[in-house]
Amino acid sequence: MEKISLVAKHAQDKSETDNIFGVNSAANAKAEIVGKENIVNASIGAFLDASGKLITLPTVEKTMYSLPFDDVANYAPIAGLPDYINAVIDVTFGENKPDAFVKGIATPGGSGAIHHAIWNYTEEGDTYLTSDWFWGPYKTMAREMMRKIDTFMTFDEEGKFNLQACIEKVEALAKVQKNVLLILNTPAHNPTGYSLTDDEWQALIDAFTELCNKKENNIILFVDIAYMDFAPEGSRKFFKKFSNLPANFLVLVGFSMSKGYTMYGYRTGCLLGISSDEQVITEFYDVNQFSSRGTWSNCTRSGMRLLIDLWKNPELMAKVNAERNEYRESMEDRAHTFINEAKEVGLKMCPYDSGFFITIPTTKAEEVGLKLREDNIFLVSLKKGLRIAICAVPAEKIKGMATKIKKAIDQIEG
Amino acid sequence: MEKISLVAKHAQDKSETDNIFGVNSAANAKAEIVGKENIVNASIGAFLDASGKLITLPTVEKTMYSLPFDDVANYAPIAGLPDYINAVIDVTFGENKPDAFVKGIATPGGSGAIHHAIWNYTEEGDTYLTSDWFWGPYKTMAREMMRKIDTFMTFDEEGKFNLQACIEKVEALAKVQKNVLLILNTPAHNPTGYSLTDDEWQALIDAFTELCNKKENNIILFVDIAYMDFAPEGSRKFFKKFSNLPANFLVLVGFSMSKGYTMYGYRTGCLLGISSDEQVITEFYDVNQFSSRGTWSNCTRSGMRLLIDLWKNPELMAKVNAERNEYRESMEDRAHTFINEAKEVGLKMCPYDSGFFITIPTTKAEEVGLKLREDNIFLVSLKKGLRIAICAVPAEKIKGMATKIKKAIDQIEG
Repeated sequence: MEKISLVAKHAQDKSETDNIFGVNSAANAKAEIVGKENIVNASIGAFLDASGKLITLPTVEKTMYSLPFDDVANYAPIAGLPDYINAVIDVTFGENKPDAFVKGIATPGGSGAIHHAIWNYTEEGDTYLTSDWFWGPYKTMAREMMRKIDTFMTFDEEGKFNLQACIEKVEALAKVQKNVLLILNTPAHNPTGYSLTDDEWQALIDAFTELCNKKENNIILFVDIAYMDFAPEGSRKFFKKFSNLPANFLVLVGFSMSKGYTMYGYRTGCLLGISSDEQVITEFYDVNQFSSRGTWSNCTRSGMRLLIDLWKNPELMAKVNAERNEYRESMEDRAHTFINEAKEVGLKMCPYDSGFFITIPTTKAEEVGLKLREDNIFLVSLKKGLRIAICAVPAEKIKGMATKIKKAIDQIEG
Repeated sequence: MEKISLVAKHAQDKSETDNIFGVNSAANAKAEIVGKENIVNASIGAFLDASGKLITLPTVEKTMYSLPFDDVANYAPIAGLPDYINAVIDVTFGENKPDAFVKGIATPGGSGAIHHAIWNYTEEGDTYLTSDWFWGPYKTMAREMMRKIDTFMTFDEEGKFNLQACIEKVEALAKVQKNVLLILNTPAHNPTGYSLTDDEWQALIDAFTELCNKKENNIILFVDIAYMDFAPEGSRKFFKKFSNLPANFLVLVGFSMSKGYTMYGYRTGCLLGISSDEQVITEFYDVNQFSSRGTWSNCTRSGMRLLIDLWKNPELMAKVNAERNEYRESMEDRAHTFINEAKEVGLKMCPYDSGFFITIPTTKAEEVGLKLREDNIFLVSLKKGLRIAICAVPAEKIKGMATKIKKAIDQIEG
């Protein structure tokens, strides 16, 4: 049969199967046979309770459903409700707001923020950078927008963030491209759970500042903070380091309410721009607002309005924070249980600080993942290893996982 | 001062001031001086009551706030909840589902649907077509995605849809481009309120089918139905004509819950694809789902879930339809009041059938618009004339408007 295609050249053969959805379906199918209670489904990147139900913050639910409907049913301004942007700036930086011009543009979740950063700050055919353990859609976006993605080795041999590899990649790319966009997902990196230390941040900023001072390039540093609310207190200090950078060093921050406020389905995010130069920030605002108008128009008003209400009512915000802390602590318990067992049985894992996932490096992730299904453990296989969504697995089911994973890896890797 | 810019070449100087927002602000400023009751603010494209409050459908509100939060807080599949797509297909086509393969992809409002159509079905530098009275963002999107927009004369000298102009433009573009994307906003066209008749639809489909049969081009016909729910019964019959078209004739439909369900702020839309060819529809699904993943990820789950609930509960859906009909009738009253007075005073207007706006052709829209502000009437000036948002003006304030507009035009045009 003749192949017929109607799409434009650049859109030919775009297709993606959802890996996570596939693993989840396999877990559910097996549960039908052996019983749900015997299945460890560590595939879904959302915080679930012991029964597999989505955990939501009660105060978020209550506030959401008390918003006046004739307000939230209306269009929001393209750039977002002004007080939403103010609230995002406050809850993001806390006490650590950089000494710089800061503006924001509402986006559908963190994804929309990354989209705009790539679209507006790289040329067609350009390459952008991230770590080699990375969230899959960073790559999907490259294909979608006709860019390329390249990676540096995330960790050095001591299991620390590989500063040298990161800086070298940036410097190499700067030799062939004007704009160098680097995406760093931290704190509580998806998928490893690593958080850059303040010293690591300082080393990166020093190196990029030096590069910028040569005036040959623009550095666009995108910080994806999707999981920041699940990192410990003090994880916001690095923002202060974005003060008084050179005008050709723009920092972008991708904010999302998905995880921190358990509002995944409300598509409420924000792209923040931080610059020492007012012109750069005015351009940031104009260009990204234009992109919103030309891509998805305005964003979900109820999500924005909810954050405004919490922000204007400190008691309510304190409640939300307390509810989130409870879940964060339960996540820490889950992680410690896994990590302690992994140490005992000698299972190698990527350095984990906090967040929804733990990762196990293996060159045979696909095979090990399939092998583990025999033990009723369902994980997502990535290029460099296995991703364990501890957010989705109750504490009692975490026990024994590390042992079984170690055994499966030993069997497959031989 | 040296101009500093960090964005990519294609993004340089993107900026747009919101014309409607400007008029609305001017109206509110004047209201502070002369009193709100003396202001006719016909700028906002949303259905407002006499006090200027957004009108929402009570059953939509009630249903929205009764949805289980742990369901709607979750991510939806990238392509949308499957039953949402089924519901969209049902409520869009009603009894007139074309005999064809049909699939859908959830989008943030109708805007997202238009974005994907342009992005995936035209090449960079390509031109796409629409009528010369058109919704402004069609043009914004061209700039955003590095396309061009061209228009045909919407109406002929008798005030009928200009079939010949439309077909000639399509044929001319087909000589220089493989894919010809034509966007038609009907029924209840924004901004004129015109609806293509079934005969006009037939003439277009015949002409495009003939063109497609030459096998030189692909025709991509995008029907923007954002206002369809405010058109009279019987306005869906044309969908049946999209049956058994050639494989290189793809029909796309942009569905939106914004107006019909008064859910503007929930960003719930859908891109439907209609084709006689299964491969074309499979490609449509794969390519557009990929674009969603690479642009905004998933869409607002609560909006989708709401439509599912209405669709599964015919009593609830009947209530929503009854509530909407009430407002539709009030819109018709407003329109008749204006149209009758326009006839009396000899004010020329574009042909109006139904919908949120009425338009008055004038070559001096900007001047007339400013002149009318002296009479406390605030309208949006378009390139070809004035747009009157009758959706935003209560019946009692409609009286006298046509007379004043006529007077202002006579004064300015001389």
